[in-house]
Amino acid sequence: MTMELMDLIIEGEKEALQQTMEELQPYDMYLIYHKLPDKHQTKLLAMLELEQIAKLLMEMEPDQQMKVLIKLGAGKAGAVLDLMDNDDIAALLTSLPPDKVKGFLSLMKQEESLIVKKMMDYPPDTAGRLMTNRFVWIPEHYTVRETVDKLKYFAEITETFNYMYVVDSGRKLKGVISYRDLILHDEDEKIAHIMFTRVISVSVTTDQEMVARLIERYDFLSMPVVDEEDKLVGIVTVDDVIDVVIREASEDIAKLSASGKDITFETKATVAAYRRLPWLILLLFIGLVSGTIISSFEETIERVVALTFFMPMIAGMTGNTGTQSLAVVVRGLTTRTIDRKTVVRLVLREFRVALMIGVICGLLISLIAFFWKGSMVLGFVVGSSLFLTLIFGTLAGTVIPLILYRFNIDPAVASGPLITTLNDILSLFIYFGIATMFLTQLM
Amino acid sequence: MTMELMDLIIEGEKEALQQTMEELQPYDMYLIYHKLPDKHQTKLLAMLELEQIAKLLMEMEPDQQMKVLIKLGAGKAGAVLDLMDNDDIAALLTSLPPDKVKGFLSLMKQEESLIVKKMMDYPPDTAGRLMTNRFVWIPEHYTVRETVDKLKYFAEITETFNYMYVVDSGRKLKGVISYRDLILHDEDEKIAHIMFTRVISVSVTTDQEMVARLIERYDFLSMPVVDEEDKLVGIVTVDDVIDVVIREASEDIAKLSASGKDITFETKATVAAYRRLPWLILLLFIGLVSGTIISSFEETIERVVALTFFMPMIAGMTGNTGTQSLAVVVRGLTTRTIDRKTVVRLVLREFRVALMIGVICGLLISLIAFFWKGSMVLGFVVGSSLFLTLIFGTLAGTVIPLILYRFNIDPAVASGPLITTLNDILSLFIYFGIATMFLTQLM
Repeated sequence: MTMELMDLIIEGEKEALQQTMEELQPYDMYLIYHKLPDKHQTKLLAMLELEQIAKLLMEMEPDQQMKVLIKLGAGKAGAVLDLMDNDDIAALLTSLPPDKVKGFLSLMKQEESLIVKKMMDYPPDTAGRLMTNRFVWIPEHYTVRETVDKLKYFAEITETFNYMYVVDSGRKLKGVISYRDLILHDEDEKIAHIMFTRVISVSVTTDQEMVARLIERYDFLSMPVVDEEDKLVGIVTVDDVIDVVIREASEDIAKLSASGKDITFETKATVAAYRRLPWLILLLFIGLVSGTIISSFEETIERVVALTFFMPMIAGMTGNTGTQSLAVVVRGLTTRTIDRKTVVRLVLREFRVALMIGVICGLLISLIAFFWKGSMVLGFVVGSSLFLTLIFGTLAGTVIPLILYRFNIDPAVASGPLITTLNDILSLFIYFGIATMFLTQLM
Repeated sequence: MTMELMDLIIEGEKEALQQTMEELQPYDMYLIYHKLPDKHQTKLLAMLELEQIAKLLMEMEPDQQMKVLIKLGAGKAGAVLDLMDNDDIAALLTSLPPDKVKGFLSLMKQEESLIVKKMMDYPPDTAGRLMTNRFVWIPEHYTVRETVDKLKYFAEITETFNYMYVVDSGRKLKGVISYRDLILHDEDEKIAHIMFTRVISVSVTTDQEMVARLIERYDFLSMPVVDEEDKLVGIVTVDDVIDVVIREASEDIAKLSASGKDITFETKATVAAYRRLPWLILLLFIGLVSGTIISSFEETIERVVALTFFMPMIAGMTGNTGTQSLAVVVRGLTTRTIDRKTVVRLVLREFRVALMIGVICGLLISLIAFFWKGSMVLGFVVGSSLFLTLIFGTLAGTVIPLILYRFNIDPAVASGPLITTLNDILSLFIYFGIATMFLTQLM
């Protein structure tokens, strides 16, 4: 396959190449392009139709898109940009420094660049940034026949996803019909009679996560977007929503592991280190707090060195149970809305979980400590400490993200390592505190 | 809204209630049902049409579905099951103990139960379990008119998602057409002439994650599923794929935090504790290994107690950097396929990241240790230990999940706490090892 293509590229068989590319899915076209050596990439770009280049670009990440646009040169780049979906252009421009954005917009047709400029005014991660304006709207006074005619007329340049949205003379959203409705009804039927009127829409400023949640719940294929005056200005399609869902999940994981945003396989080492370092340095200082706690119990430790053997286990377990609870809470919060009742029930549930885990692990470690070191008091100190730290650790992993959520701070930021490190400190206090109380019996 | 509905329920206004429900999206119907007190739920179920109950059920989790089916009684439950999508029934039956499955299948029409039984034979988490068989297939010798007639005939009982799949006389998959194609072409046009023939399909045994990845890459709205003989047996739709993507992301997070599968806000405390305990007990024993390492350095610690102050920080930091790398790798693996070249580049990248992080954090802690405790040797021991443990920790967080992936073990199982705990052990060895070498200078 790629061999044939290589021949076509090398021999400059422009038409045959365009034909072959036309039959490929855009993603497969991208895979082929990606694997080509640099000089063949340039040659391929010179041979493709503008529309094919636009499709190819829309499969790429911003940095790859930039390389292609530079290869194309200003004139051709502008023509290709005009053919790209405006949400893809907005995504590309968002990643550029502000002074370069202007240059790019000036390459495009004024009509197209105005639309993109307007999209860029909406806050990041909103429906306004995600929507496409290449869709067909249907006036409510149309008949089925007129609708089909309009669809035929715009077939080449619009995305349609099963549904078409119906508007009144002021372009206000009034209803929705599907291709299926058009096929099932008589040609002379009025759209106003057959459309579904309880249409659910979002505003240009609706958060993209909310859009994703609505599309997921209602099993929609697209969602109409209206502006401040309730006018239909775009549609968000389900394929963009899948990308949002994947990106949001990756962000949750990145935050939970405190690895900072946007580190992929392609990120440069210096950039990745720069993004990870602030968290690590913060955690280093928090770790030193643990050190000062230990240091304040220096006397206890000097007298019973055996206490240090159980220290990593207790600190580790407190962190582990906290992380477990945190994961349940963070993931729960992204997939459902919660009310006071849910919160109370959740915290009580986690408390009961903590009690059970605490009793079982506490008893287990008491026995181990007793048989290993032969001291019942040590068994009691270690067991009761683990029991208490597991309860506090579990509750910290539950309550902290809920509080952050309440104050509109992303709970995933209460990241795993942060809660782990906080639980470290807590557990050392409890462990050495109890040990100090029983110091004379331990010695 | 709900008040009006309450009146309709209490006053037994069956027709008005059915009418109101008909205008609601299934998810909204579910929200209303969910909020009703138990006795009103029962009354509402008695008043709804069978098809409405089926729609309501398809929005619920298995345990809620069971409650409703029990309320309905055997006869009505069977009739409702016949109306549900077979992938939803299969999902419900999967969650039941095997002896109950038979009873359920016997309630259904034989024709429907046979289809569900066949689906249940496919391995879990495959396309065969996820697909629906309520779709329209088009024989390739049809014209556009015949196709539209068939669509009209089956309109009520099938799901169609923009695309229809075209088969030959042996029901082998030959092509795909969209509603849009039907509208754009002449009524007498042959389907075989206008269909797209390079149709991408999956097998009944294809993993659902792979199906999701294909639909996401190609921006499809549905994907045809073929059996061992290449016959078209079902379609997977994009709405089910979104659910898969969300579920897989939640599972990744659950595994990364070692919290066990399937803990949601609704899980009972005993069940949640039961699912979390195996991991915690495993981690408890691994934590004790750290204890034995410390115990083998007892002499070193007894002589220089100050060493314990930096112990939690070093162990914590090693765990943190490992978790960061792990998150990058696990998330990267779910969103792209990787080859040897990518692996080598990734490991080298992480090594460079580790060097940078190691030098900066190592120098920082050297200075802190020196100024805090006034010992240059201590500063050197702590700093060089942190430098080394950060490098090993980062590489462990990168290489371990890659090795697991190579052997087809889910890399997310190399969970955060597990790598954290392993890194604990590693870091203690390095730290106390270096400290012991410089013991005379430290004292």
